[in-house]
Amino acid sequence: MNRRILQRLGPRVRRTYLAVLLLLFGLAAFWQPLSLRLAAAVERAEPAAAVSAALPREPSAAAEPAHAFQFFSPFTDARFSRVELAALLMVLAVAIAGLLYALMLARQVRRADSGTPKMQEIAAAVREGANSYMAAQFRRIGPLIIIITVLLAVTYTGAESAFRWGRASAFLVGALFSWCVGFVGMRLATVGNLRVAAAARHSYGEAMQLGYRTGTVTGMLTDGLGLLGGTAIFLIYGINAYEALLGFGFGGTLLALFMRVGGGIYTKAADVGADLVGKIEKDIPEDDPRNAATIADNVGDNVGDCAGMAADIFESYEVTIVAAMILGMASFGHKGVVFPLLVRGIGVLGSIISTYTVKAGPNDTSDTALKSVHRGFWIGSVISVAGFFLLGLAYLRFDAAYLATNPMAAAGFPVGGPAALPFWANFGSAGLDLRPAWTCLIGVFLAVALNKVTSYYTHTAHAPVLGLAKACTTGHATNIIQGIAVGYESTVAAILVIGGAILLSVMCYTGTPPMFIAYGVAMAGIGMLTLTGNTISMDVFGPVADNANGIGEMGYDKAAMEANQPGSYKRARQILADLDAVGNTTKAETKGIAIGSAVIAAVSLFSSFIAVIAVGSEDRIGLMTVEQYMREAGRLTVAAPSVFVGFLLGGAVPFLFSGMLLRAVGRAAFFIVKECRLQFQDPAIWQGTKKPDYGRVVGICTETAQKELIGPGFLAIGAPIMVGFLLGPYALGGFLAGTILVGQLLAVFMANAGGAWDNAKKHIEDGHYGGKGSEAHKAAVTGDTVGDPLKDTAGPAINPLIKVMNMVSLLTLGLVLRFNLVSPSATSGSPRLIGAIAALVCAAAIAWAVWTSKRESEDVEAQGTAKV
Amino acid sequence: MNRRILQRLGPRVRRTYLAVLLLLFGLAAFWQPLSLRLAAAVERAEPAAAVSAALPREPSAAAEPAHAFQFFSPFTDARFSRVELAALLMVLAVAIAGLLYALMLARQVRRADSGTPKMQEIAAAVREGANSYMAAQFRRIGPLIIIITVLLAVTYTGAESAFRWGRASAFLVGALFSWCVGFVGMRLATVGNLRVAAAARHSYGEAMQLGYRTGTVTGMLTDGLGLLGGTAIFLIYGINAYEALLGFGFGGTLLALFMRVGGGIYTKAADVGADLVGKIEKDIPEDDPRNAATIADNVGDNVGDCAGMAADIFESYEVTIVAAMILGMASFGHKGVVFPLLVRGIGVLGSIISTYTVKAGPNDTSDTALKSVHRGFWIGSVISVAGFFLLGLAYLRFDAAYLATNPMAAAGFPVGGPAALPFWANFGSAGLDLRPAWTCLIGVFLAVALNKVTSYYTHTAHAPVLGLAKACTTGHATNIIQGIAVGYESTVAAILVIGGAILLSVMCYTGTPPMFIAYGVAMAGIGMLTLTGNTISMDVFGPVADNANGIGEMGYDKAAMEANQPGSYKRARQILADLDAVGNTTKAETKGIAIGSAVIAAVSLFSSFIAVIAVGSEDRIGLMTVEQYMREAGRLTVAAPSVFVGFLLGGAVPFLFSGMLLRAVGRAAFFIVKECRLQFQDPAIWQGTKKPDYGRVVGICTETAQKELIGPGFLAIGAPIMVGFLLGPYALGGFLAGTILVGQLLAVFMANAGGAWDNAKKHIEDGHYGGKGSEAHKAAVTGDTVGDPLKDTAGPAINPLIKVMNMVSLLTLGLVLRFNLVSPSATSGSPRLIGAIAALVCAAAIAWAVWTSKRESEDVEAQGTAKV
Repeated sequence: MNRRILQRLGPRVRRTYLAVLLLLFGLAAFWQPLSLRLAAAVERAEPAAAVSAALPREPSAAAEPAHAFQFFSPFTDARFSRVELAALLMVLAVAIAGLLYALMLARQVRRADSGTPKMQEIAAAVREGANSYMAAQFRRIGPLIIIITVLLAVTYTGAESAFRWGRASAFLVGALFSWCVGFVGMRLATVGNLRVAAAARHSYGEAMQLGYRTGTVTGMLTDGLGLLGGTAIFLIYGINAYEALLGFGFGGTLLALFMRVGGGIYTKAADVGADLVGKIEKDIPEDDPRNAATIADNVGDNVGDCAGMAADIFESYEVTIVAAMILGMASFGHKGVVFPLLVRGIGVLGSIISTYTVKAGPNDTSDTALKSVHRGFWIGSVISVAGFFLLGLAYLRFDAAYLATNPMAAAGFPVGGPAALPFWANFGSAGLDLRPAWTCLIGVFLAVALNKVTSYYTHTAHAPVLGLAKACTTGHATNIIQGIAVGYESTVAAILVIGGAILLSVMCYTGTPPMFIAYGVAMAGIGMLTLTGNTISMDVFGPVADNANGIGEMGYDKAAMEANQPGSYKRARQILADLDAVGNTTKAETKGIAIGSAVIAAVSLFSSFIAVIAVGSEDRIGLMTVEQYMREAGRLTVAAPSVFVGFLLGGAVPFLFSGMLLRAVGRAAFFIVKECRLQFQDPAIWQGTKKPDYGRVVGICTETAQKELIGPGFLAIGAPIMVGFLLGPYALGGFLAGTILVGQLLAVFMANAGGAWDNAKKHIEDGHYGGKGSEAHKAAVTGDTVGDPLKDTAGPAINPLIKVMNMVSLLTLGLVLRFNLVSPSATSGSPRLIGAIAALVCAAAIAWAVWTSKRESEDVEAQGTAKV
Repeated sequence: MNRRILQRLGPRVRRTYLAVLLLLFGLAAFWQPLSLRLAAAVERAEPAAAVSAALPREPSAAAEPAHAFQFFSPFTDARFSRVELAALLMVLAVAIAGLLYALMLARQVRRADSGTPKMQEIAAAVREGANSYMAAQFRRIGPLIIIITVLLAVTYTGAESAFRWGRASAFLVGALFSWCVGFVGMRLATVGNLRVAAAARHSYGEAMQLGYRTGTVTGMLTDGLGLLGGTAIFLIYGINAYEALLGFGFGGTLLALFMRVGGGIYTKAADVGADLVGKIEKDIPEDDPRNAATIADNVGDNVGDCAGMAADIFESYEVTIVAAMILGMASFGHKGVVFPLLVRGIGVLGSIISTYTVKAGPNDTSDTALKSVHRGFWIGSVISVAGFFLLGLAYLRFDAAYLATNPMAAAGFPVGGPAALPFWANFGSAGLDLRPAWTCLIGVFLAVALNKVTSYYTHTAHAPVLGLAKACTTGHATNIIQGIAVGYESTVAAILVIGGAILLSVMCYTGTPPMFIAYGVAMAGIGMLTLTGNTISMDVFGPVADNANGIGEMGYDKAAMEANQPGSYKRARQILADLDAVGNTTKAETKGIAIGSAVIAAVSLFSSFIAVIAVGSEDRIGLMTVEQYMREAGRLTVAAPSVFVGFLLGGAVPFLFSGMLLRAVGRAAFFIVKECRLQFQDPAIWQGTKKPDYGRVVGICTETAQKELIGPGFLAIGAPIMVGFLLGPYALGGFLAGTILVGQLLAVFMANAGGAWDNAKKHIEDGHYGGKGSEAHKAAVTGDTVGDPLKDTAGPAINPLIKVMNMVSLLTLGLVLRFNLVSPSATSGSPRLIGAIAALVCAAAIAWAVWTSKRESEDVEAQGTAKV
């Protein structure tokens, strides 16, 4: 795509999106009655809906009294006290405060000095590339989102049509929020990088603060939108929010998957392509302006590390609150729902306060800057932990009146009722139940422990990376073997930490029914992501500082700066290099949290999955008995061969998915290499007298990344549907368990092995074992290149993959229960036919994805042979 | 160790072993009453046994009538017809015939021409190295085996002391058989390689036949001993054989684990060490006689590929028959037990006939030789399939009288009894039940399909390897990335095939209780390993031909041969190269079966696991009701958080285990490099005038391989015991499920990625992309070196790991049920204390293993820094 078109497209696209976003959000969330009328119209018109309506409803559904559902029920429901309503509204206010804080920081960043025209030009090229990618992705994904929205509405199996459209519109809102977080985060990163480079000319502290605050904008957007969505849905749907929450979570997750996958392919294709043609073929340095792929490489950092990561953590944030609220309703009643929202509110407050304290002096170094970032995290942690224990002391009181109106909560106090809890759970005050606060604390510790594990295995300060660097001295192969071993070990450490946290949460609820235990696990997830604002600030700081360093390298006018003030160029470059190092550290530290939260969220959603099987339909989840639950959970045993087969298939998906992504990166990189070679044939470009057409490479990256999205997307959505219809709901449960286990192991293995290789290379470049240019360095570069697609494409994409498959399973479960091919309850004949068709369609989609990926490879190879 | 000592030790050690073997087997299997008297004596003397006896027995155990157990009950039990007894004795005869056939072939091989003294000298050096390794391993493992034998006897929780010592002595016999298969197979391979090299000087056909028959000896030994053990145990213990079978399986599996791990470390340490110091540091070719590590490298091929692989397949052969017999007893009664034994007997006959047909003419080429090997496999398959269907037609008849004496079998005919089976199951003959034959057929297809999958992903004829070779042209990293993608995809294909086979087997038994379904899966395992004789022949042929090629390269006297008959040297070398290629192909084809059988065996053993939980003790497994089974299976749900945590831990073990092995190879290789460097400092050795001390390197390999065994061994045995006592029996079930899933995926990934890299290198060496010495070739060598420890050490060792953990879980389950820390039934106080101590001991052992592996690394690094 031509750069001029991009330039014109940028702001227009942005304005259009914002308008669409606001319109749709308004439509979906607040004009619910309108959508209901629409629903009625569609039901009359849509033949598919007619089929679904004509199907035999389960007998018990007909026998139950109709729900007297009404919107905004918390405001009229007698169970909610005025204080609770006020608190919920306060949470809403906190969410909005978070968004306003983000707006304020964004203005600060925008208003900062934006450097010289040369710097601006480079930054603009990167920004435009990033915009064009986001626009292309929106065009590609937009229709899909609309189709899924309609499908969600049409395939709803419950009785209450408010939920039908509630689910669909919440999906839309969730998707838009997720997209918005990724889009705005990336936009601001492409604005912030320039400001950081400009500020570095004057002051270390200013540059550092700008970089960190650029990250904080994304962080607070995540916090704010996540909390806003969850709270708004609860206020609108009250204790029946299950459907809408699921839709909301699914929307966020699906978008995150696409942004992770697309961004991951983009960034590594550009990176690998630029390196292959530049460093290896032409032997020119990285970021050489003659290489047509350099801008695409910088764009990749933004779309991959900013947009992808932000959307990813946003969906973790969403899904954990969804899980906690659903399980809270099914266990402790409305207090179980309100508490996680309040905890999140406290977390947002903690993030606002603590991120604002992160600053550095004009002449500070990377050490003090890192300390300040860490101090910010600790301040936030202390505020949050103190906050949710204080909140617990005030709010988590369960008296006889509460248990009378919320009878299901009684089972949560197995022996002797709320008064008989052990001391640690009530601090001696009868009726108090601090277990949710304790599980939140476990989550906070889990986040810290995962950071430490990641840090141990991927930092140059510790034995694993040092050993890798040493292994480079005996060649490429020993480095790779050792790196694989490090990755294997690190994934064991991570799973021990996660398993330990789950076990501790479970022990807090010893003796209670499964839904309460699952609630404990979900609350650990809430605790884990309490400081999402700080986490994302630290994460986004990485690519912003990285890009700023690049802008400084290409855009600083050395002569002018030195003429103005001698030594200032060197000082500014040093500041940027320091910030880059700090950013790498903070970014790496947060990596463990994203995948850890996926496992915790998935484990807690598992209980909802069984609950839905138990009662046969999502909207009756509140009516479930413990006996029903236990009976259905028992059928989900690995001892049942069909469950075991589902389990094997589930374990295979992350491997297939990763294989597809690794291949996709290779294919995309090939096209980039081809284009760069073509441009190098122009002698003017090679001599540096003519600027290469960066836009063409950006366009290729954008186009192939979009194209390569489809296959993995089909796999993620199609696999659980196929397994569900073909092998039944229990096999689907086994499938999910297999995916969680293998996904977690594989994701951490790839992320940490890649991280360790990366830092082993840096360690050698710092002058060890012969430094740059030595044989050891060559081996280290091989390790780094192998690690790149593992740690930045395949590894992180598994995180949303796990959650998308979980969400798809939950959302289609109602249909699976009715139409699957194996359940004895599913009558033969037409329901089975429908299931068979659905399974067949999904199988065909997956087969097509695999086949396309193969065919394209052959294509590339044929072209490659012709050219090479 | 000095070579002369080795020379003297060789035959003496062998004779001692054979004597010990025969003595122990005689003691254990036929003088059972003696061991019973011993048992009584030990029970009086042993304090630990007294503790165990003093523990409260479960009340129901006391209430039941005592088993009227007697030895050799099948001969007196009225349920066994004369025909059945005759058939069982015939199976015993077939097993012995198989062993005699092996003996005959071994004589043939030994009597063949053994070449010139120079060739003999090289072969002798390799043989002695291999012997010294086996002797060292025996010294190291022997005491452990004795300790475990005693432990098994002491920790027996059942009431009947015949089983106590039956289990322990069967363990001893199983271990000895497994060791014997590995030892004899390897011994004969070191004899056969010389004969093949000698025969190649005259005739292609003769050389090929000698190589194949060398493999067949090991194959028939596996068949014969496996069948002999299973049948003898059944004849001795009758329908109460459960305990003894488990012990037998565990013995074989544990030895296989040690031989796999030790052999794997040995072979790759020698290989990598020889390459690092020879090819990379000194730039001399492979197998250069000046390199002190060359003989160790050749020894490694024998101890890794022959001994390790043979022991591994032997234990698969054992464990599948154990699973089928246990489940046969619990489902269809004695016919369910006798049928798999008969099927195995037919398989042995098929192998005898078909392996004998494999031959080639004096002037044949590798194409015709490969065809002959494949034709042999097909002949064997046809004989077996026809055999077990004919057998089924005659034997698998279930009339009212049978159902009256075996009432549990009735549940296997859900609607309308045996007469109402569908046509495919009884061919229209009421009372016939061919479902076991059909599931065997599924197993045969599974074996063929797994071979095809392996072949597709690792052969130079197919797209994956060709793509890898092409990727080598863009560098080391692209080759590695692509190889990882190929490995990921291949593991998905393998799991689809295995999942499909399980599903088909399950469908054969639709509507029956779980034990019958598990029996179907176990019978698929029996079918899969029917042609073990042929499979091992094909596998062992690989290293024999490889070694023969090496002997030809180093030992042929070119001048003398050419003087005698011009052109004969070139012709003989060509024959050896051709055979090497054929051997590589046949060896690779069989790889998929070993790991596939582990999964099938583990899945079928799962049901025994639940059955034991259901009835509380192993010896009452026959008394279990379907309701009990279903109730306990239901508690093994992934929805229970403790099961899920067990499941996460189980998935982590294969990663930790693989990481340990990869590191162990690195450490061992380091010591070899050090020794070789030392020897190169002697100018006489470097100039080739003095022979290096090969024995020292062999000694180092032997020593370090033994040392490195311990850590992974502790992990394999300790992890399930720890999880069982700490988290209870259900978490242990989840643990096993996690291990099976992740182990299967990881093992196939590593094996196939390694195989693909290996063959991509060969493809380039055949002259593509610049051939040997090109940049592409260097990248291919990196891939091959990375793949080596993956495909020959870590990958194959996971197969016995899965089964050892399964067996340990089954064997300790009685204790776990009594002493674990979580079951509400386990009373607090001293039983919990015992569990806590056991868990602690295991945790300490694992921690020690991990710590040792870390400390040793540091050691090596410190020495490395001092030297480099």
